[in-house]
Amino acid sequence: MKFNCNQSILSKTLNIVSKAVPTRTTSKIMEGILIVAKDNKLILSATDTNILIEETIYTEVIEEGEVVIPSKLFTNIIRMLPNENVLIHFNEVTKEVNVDCKNSTSKIVGFSSDEYPKIKTEDINNEIKIEKELFKNMVQKTAFSASVEESKGVLTGILIEINENEIKMVAIDGFRMAINKSNIEGKNITQVIVPAKLLLDVSKIINTENDNKFIEVKSNDNKIIIIFDNTKVIINLLNGEFIKYNNIIPKNSDISIRVIKNDLSESIERAAILTNEQNHNLIKFKIEDKEMELTSLSEIGKINEKVEIIKDGPDIEIGFNSRYLIDLLKVIEDEEIMIHMTNSVSPCLIKPLTGEKYVYLILPVRIN
Amino acid sequence: MKFNCNQSILSKTLNIVSKAVPTRTTSKIMEGILIVAKDNKLILSATDTNILIEETIYTEVIEEGEVVIPSKLFTNIIRMLPNENVLIHFNEVTKEVNVDCKNSTSKIVGFSSDEYPKIKTEDINNEIKIEKELFKNMVQKTAFSASVEESKGVLTGILIEINENEIKMVAIDGFRMAINKSNIEGKNITQVIVPAKLLLDVSKIINTENDNKFIEVKSNDNKIIIIFDNTKVIINLLNGEFIKYNNIIPKNSDISIRVIKNDLSESIERAAILTNEQNHNLIKFKIEDKEMELTSLSEIGKINEKVEIIKDGPDIEIGFNSRYLIDLLKVIEDEEIMIHMTNSVSPCLIKPLTGEKYVYLILPVRIN
Repeated sequence: MKFNCNQSILSKTLNIVSKAVPTRTTSKIMEGILIVAKDNKLILSATDTNILIEETIYTEVIEEGEVVIPSKLFTNIIRMLPNENVLIHFNEVTKEVNVDCKNSTSKIVGFSSDEYPKIKTEDINNEIKIEKELFKNMVQKTAFSASVEESKGVLTGILIEINENEIKMVAIDGFRMAINKSNIEGKNITQVIVPAKLLLDVSKIINTENDNKFIEVKSNDNKIIIIFDNTKVIINLLNGEFIKYNNIIPKNSDISIRVIKNDLSESIERAAILTNEQNHNLIKFKIEDKEMELTSLSEIGKINEKVEIIKDGPDIEIGFNSRYLIDLLKVIEDEEIMIHMTNSVSPCLIKPLTGEKYVYLILPVRIN
Repeated sequence: MKFNCNQSILSKTLNIVSKAVPTRTTSKIMEGILIVAKDNKLILSATDTNILIEETIYTEVIEEGEVVIPSKLFTNIIRMLPNENVLIHFNEVTKEVNVDCKNSTSKIVGFSSDEYPKIKTEDINNEIKIEKELFKNMVQKTAFSASVEESKGVLTGILIEINENEIKMVAIDGFRMAINKSNIEGKNITQVIVPAKLLLDVSKIINTENDNKFIEVKSNDNKIIIIFDNTKVIINLLNGEFIKYNNIIPKNSDISIRVIKNDLSESIERAAILTNEQNHNLIKFKIEDKEMELTSLSEIGKINEKVEIIKDGPDIEIGFNSRYLIDLLKVIEDEEIMIHMTNSVSPCLIKPLTGEKYVYLILPVRIN
């Protein structure tokens, strides 16, 4: 195998593909990146068997072939080379990969690709096209509500529900829930559960700055395939039944509060200075007609914040985990939001002033 | 004690002073910042007893007094407040510090200043004025060569030597040495050894962007005092005799090499990808008339770099610790440098093309 490639393009591509290389593995070959050189293009891919990232580079292939190159070493060497042509040559006999660029020559011990796992993706049932920006946003505004505990199974995932002309993402960790909804074209009805962490990682490599504004999302019974630019990502789905989330959302609420999002989040972030695991990240809210008073307390001090509100319904005292509030307020872009609650133990909802583009639900913390 | 202060000024000041607060201490009061409010100014200071940082803010003092406030909590609260006036009030009876700003009110448990250590600085023997930029640069171009092992005593320090119209800084860790030299006005002859880490920390808080271009450096037998802008820093000197560094510098060298600094440092950084503690960070240099060839080797690969040079003297093969070379090349701003060596076991010198503004010495690593 032998090919020429520009350093900068190769370096950027390796940075993306290397994200799928497992950080902990006892298998040397799994620490590598598979390069297939064929038809004047390179296909670079890596997998930890849960996620596969594949990138295509169009460049001059002098001699077709395949090799697995240790990811960390190869990525480091390519990154530090000057922005010039790099000639890469794999000697099938000696298993040596030669990297030549200007006055720099490196030899890396490579592996035959035979031993590297092949991920197959047949029987595609569903296929939608969705704006990159929208997909990325929906993932990032939902993923934080998924559970991070491996033992929680489907709750570590994001449920992606596609109904006629609508896409919905839902994540629940048992204490809070995030729902994001958008209109899309198409009418493939499907429902998949994708590991939230992996989906979030993918959202970070989606480049919204270039001309391609869309990604393709395909799925079958056990995989989701996400395609954009020269990238293809394959993720194993989580198997199991997702929580009937609609049943958890309170249908009515006695108290409605309208508040400027930044006023609320700045006050919560200050009050949160005194919250910690010991006090369950507790901030107490005393909600009256035109004002809510936030209080946090620890053995070293007390913080008191006042936030103007417009309220409908009775006064209430209620406690929340500051971390949950901070997480969800961080991803809301609206200037004002609505908070709906019924009493100090029932779930509280956060929504836009109108519509249900997003619904966040959090359980209160008991105060006494 | 009661005073008004602008949030942004107070926050910036706390960030600087808090750097002297010890990170590990069993004494609660030592985790605090001492604030003395008097004559319409605030003097904020903190010390871990090795270094003291003191800042002055000119502002409205309503009621004079003193208090020690827990650094981390106070700094966090002030940082997160809006850029408005902050009213701070210490109640001597309840020991409560009240922080009021707009709709935010915090109460922090404070300490009486009686228990807080007082650092005295009498008997100033020496005093020089030096440009901020120059002082900062000299420290940053020397400190990295000092030892980081506590047990090494004076070798963990930078020797600051002031002779007539000259300042010199020297650091040695046993394997390498850095010397930086500059002309200054004044004729106080003195010699002090200052902990390199603390001096480096101070160099980072010296702001060269404002109108004051000079700092004052004073010393007595056991302290150095550095004054700039509204800041005063006091550092305990290291006691002991410094190495007679002039005796270590080879007087003559058989081989002189002239090289473009960036070419050399880029090649070294690439070759260093394969170096590690196991192979003693070894890069081999094969130095011939017009070219030097750098080679690094590990069980996973081999990197080979060629750098153009102008050489005077015989060819040589010599090995160096890549980390030492990278450290010193990073702080050199000259486009070209001279490397002087005699054989593969004697110290190697790195100097400017002319003069001795800096001299770096490193010991070779044995190759066989």
